Amino acid sequence: MQVHIDPRRVLATLRALARFGAQGKGVSRPALSPEDMAARRWLAGQMREAGLEADIDAVGNVYGRTPGVRHALLVGSHSDSVPNGGWLDGALGVVYGLEAARAWRAQQPHAPVGIDVIAFSDEEGRYLSCLGSRSFCEALDGIDPGRLQYGGATLAEAAAAAGLPAQGLARLEPARHLAYLEAHIEQGPRLDDGGLDVGIVTGIAGMQRYLVQFGGRADHAGTTPMAVRKDAALAAFEFALACEAALRRAGGPDSVWNFGALALQPGVANVVARSATLTVEFRDLSPEVLERLAQALHECVSLRDGQRGVSVAATRQNALAPARMDPALQAHLQAQARQAGARSLALPSGAIHDAMVLARRVPTAMLFIPSIGGRSHTPVEDTAERHIMLGAEVFCGALARAAQQAAPGGAAAK
Amino acid sequence: MQVHIDPRRVLATLRALARFGAQGKGVSRPALSPEDMAARRWLAGQMREAGLEADIDAVGNVYGRTPGVRHALLVGSHSDSVPNGGWLDGALGVVYGLEAARAWRAQQPHAPVGIDVIAFSDEEGRYLSCLGSRSFCEALDGIDPGRLQYGGATLAEAAAAAGLPAQGLARLEPARHLAYLEAHIEQGPRLDDGGLDVGIVTGIAGMQRYLVQFGGRADHAGTTPMAVRKDAALAAFEFALACEAALRRAGGPDSVWNFGALALQPGVANVVARSATLTVEFRDLSPEVLERLAQALHECVSLRDGQRGVSVAATRQNALAPARMDPALQAHLQAQARQAGARSLALPSGAIHDAMVLARRVPTAMLFIPSIGGRSHTPVEDTAERHIMLGAEVFCGALARAAQQAAPGGAAAK
Repeated sequence: MQVHIDPRRVLATLRALARFGAQGKGVSRPALSPEDMAARRWLAGQMREAGLEADIDAVGNVYGRTPGVRHALLVGSHSDSVPNGGWLDGALGVVYGLEAARAWRAQQPHAPVGIDVIAFSDEEGRYLSCLGSRSFCEALDGIDPGRLQYGGATLAEAAAAAGLPAQGLARLEPARHLAYLEAHIEQGPRLDDGGLDVGIVTGIAGMQRYLVQFGGRADHAGTTPMAVRKDAALAAFEFALACEAALRRAGGPDSVWNFGALALQPGVANVVARSATLTVEFRDLSPEVLERLAQALHECVSLRDGQRGVSVAATRQNALAPARMDPALQAHLQAQARQAGARSLALPSGAIHDAMVLARRVPTAMLFIPSIGGRSHTPVEDTAERHIMLGAEVFCGALARAAQQAAPGGAAAK
Repeated sequence: MQVHIDPRRVLATLRALARFGAQGKGVSRPALSPEDMAARRWLAGQMREAGLEADIDAVGNVYGRTPGVRHALLVGSHSDSVPNGGWLDGALGVVYGLEAARAWRAQQPHAPVGIDVIAFSDEEGRYLSCLGSRSFCEALDGIDPGRLQYGGATLAEAAAAAGLPAQGLARLEPARHLAYLEAHIEQGPRLDDGGLDVGIVTGIAGMQRYLVQFGGRADHAGTTPMAVRKDAALAAFEFALACEAALRRAGGPDSVWNFGALALQPGVANVVARSATLTVEFRDLSPEVLERLAQALHECVSLRDGQRGVSVAATRQNALAPARMDPALQAHLQAQARQAGARSLALPSGAIHDAMVLARRVPTAMLFIPSIGGRSHTPVEDTAERHIMLGAEVFCGALARAAQQAAPGGAAAK
């Protein structure tokens, strides 16, 4: 089965999409914002022009189905962005899917395996990280999405204000959706540093995030002798450094961790901090390593609790199990990269993607293209045009391989 | 010269003042808020009832002058509070002054040395720490008070909205004001822990405050290998702990320091901190020790600058020289405490007071009364009634001693 895509059209579609919420070289399209909704309505129109039956569902997922087929490859990513984000990020994977569907409908109108395209809602977590794909996969784990909040409004209120339908959710259909494939920028420096063209994702690192609370006592910083203070700020600083050392000892070579947020109360120069709240998160591809990292964190909490007269307690705020990518789909991407002359690297994803949610339900794969300087979630995020176009060819070629193998008698006939 | 005050009236006046901005057991009277202004208008009325000529000036100082005298002792403190503060704090010193003036006018209407009472504006620094006393002493160091800002409004706008006159500032008159005396709660635990009744302040510790800026690089906390990060958060934590150790080595036995505020940017769990801003302040009564502490801070900055790939730079945000209290006035407080049977302690003030500003211009003294548990700037701030009343007697008795000595021929006649 042969499908030829138009790499220049991919670039043009990406540039057209980047006009929605444009801010300098980047875009600001937080989920359900007017800019995000305008982009979603435009994407639904593009899907219809490509020959798909497209609608926007009650949480904002834009879902285009190939008519008249019993089986399809589901392809896409997300079209929302972080505030003041980059122009590619999830948009890339949505536009690759759109291009594949266009080429498919035009060149293989009777193919037994169609291309369904999806632009998931709120992958960036304005309301909930991977909201759209979690809704699509019925993986909300008991969360009532209507009650999620942002900026004083519930998701239900924001959805109504955005003009979304009150009812109707797109759903994964296990009998129809043979696989999910997603393209994305790497968001890290490995491909760019290595002079590589594409990355074939082996898995998505699992993540655990904790809130560590420090309880001290507020005191006047001029009148309270040093010896009697219960300083939550210094206790938090010491904890973070001890925890960093413990995580390094417990982790594997690809483990990463971060202490990205710290709030001191009352947080003024002349009052000893009464309390501190520190976020700790760590990631690894191996469930065993994640378990060791969690253990190391809890040991730190036990060791430091009560030191400096400050209580220490950790609560888990979020946990995502690692997701392995499907070996057969990885092999298709690998074979297509070889055929296209693209230099490739098999690598894990340290970032979370909608593919992480889908992988629990269907065979899933991801293709990365290089991020210049490893930068993302900023207006300077970019990828060379050559890499955007080459990536589209590798990705769509691999879709054809997967569709061929999945079609009745396909594997034997290839 | 004998003046008898009414300690029960002191309590009643304090309770009446605490109704303005009452929040539970405490008060919220940030400078120029409606609650603060209502309290100031009420205080001006109380001063007039006591026989003073009272007005509120353009920055909010409530100033009551004894008519018909060429010399006066200036007595008072501030009537503004921190948000959600305690009922005594500066209010205590204003009410002691009011009681002294009342007793004076009633019992010594022809005394050659009068009592002038002042309730300074914004000691707590909503717009500028010690704004009122700095304005009164012409010690604004080039700051244009009208341009100071809080909550998006300038002081000039807030003053106009609060109904303050556009012109007219109360001023220290060196030929008139023989001395400044201020009573205040200790705001620390030393008197309460020691079972003491009053504290006679030897001096007010000087303070230096720095903003330390850390410049790293924002990176995705999942995709960026640990080895290439430039983490401003961890650099700030390490700096604070190294600086704490250096300040301890450089300081004296009464030196104190604090790291009360830290802001991380962007300050989210899954992004490596691009920058951090840490406040460091330290205090001591000795200029030499303050110099050593500043040196230690700067050495820390030099040592850590560039470590973890993060730049470190410190800028001085504020500096107040220590202020010695007048020995003769201290002796009057001491003698009066002895006479009243009050157990006293000579101690430095770690907190800043309006007296620090006044001490540069006139002989100045302060009396402390105990803070239960050392607590202040919180609604639980309190002092035993017995201590409030005993403190008033010691304070007003010392005023009479000072007035007597200052009056023509006074020192010889006593």
